This record gives sequence, C-alpha cells and structure tokens, in this order.
Amino acid sequence: MKARIKITLKTGVLDPQGKAIQHALTGLGFAGINDVRQGKYIEVDLADTAEPAAREKVDRICKDLLANTVIENYSYELVP
Amino acid sequence: MKARIKITLKTGVLDPQGKAIQHALTGLGFAGINDVRQGKYIEVDLADTAEPAAREKVDRICKDLLANTVIENYSYELVP
Repeated sequence: MKARIKITLKTGVLDPQGKAIQHALTGLGFAGINDVRQGKYIEVDLADTAEPAAREKVDRICKDLLANTVIENYSYELVP
Repeated sequence: MKARIKITLKTGVLDPQGKAIQHALTGLGFAGINDVRQGKYIEVDLADTAEPAAREKVDRICKDLLANTVIENYSYELVP
C-alpha cells in the first residue's frame, strides 16, 4: 500500500521559497500569478495491506518525522 | 483558479532524500517501510478563470521553471 503525503505550510506562515518562485515567474513574463506556496510531497511504500493499520501508521509517521505540526499541515491519500 | 502541482523524480533516478527518510523511519522503529520517494508540492494561485488557458499556462510554468523534465515528472490538478 502506498501513501501519498502532502505537507504544506499553515496559512499565515511566511513562505520565502514560494515568494521566490512567484518573483521568478513574474520575471519570466507570466502574468496573473496571485500567490505561490511551496510544500513537500512524499510517497511512502508500506508493507501493510490493511487500510486502518496503514492510516494509523502514516499518521504517526507524519507527526513524528515528516511534518512540523506547529507550522505545517499534512494530508495524505492511500492507494493500494 | 488554483493549480496543485506535484513534482516527482522519475523512476530509476536516485533519491538520497527519500533514502534518508526511510532510514530515519526504520531508526524510529517503524517496520515495513519498503520505499520512500521525496518530491515537491507547489500551489499556484492564478488570476485566470478559464480552464484551457490556465492548463496551458501551468504546463509552461512547470516546463520552464518548476520541473527539470530530464529527471522529474510533474502532474497537477486545477481547482476553482
């Protein structure tokens, strides 16, 4: 079972990487870019096949290692 | 209109960041982690409201700036 995890900065948290991308896009001539936010995308391939167990494990993985829950949100989807 | 862009390394391209995460998870006591791949997640808020125009713009943004198409794949979804 695979978990596709998205980690994003919470609203209100400054995102200098996103701002740099936005600035670069404007510099490249792209118009109408209101905002850019950068996050992380992580795919974890789990040996577990039962969804409740996998869900519980991915939650713990996100909280313990991948996301800093003070400033970041995480969401994920499980695919077989 | 918002574009949610996922950029991932192509299969076969070495991913040391992913390997580091996998190693750290095993070290933390998580069992059954077969593989971890790290990518990027970028949200772009566009002024465009028409989907075909937005799609064309996001494709160009990905190819010109965000993704290195030699070693990375990108995919995205548009949300109103």
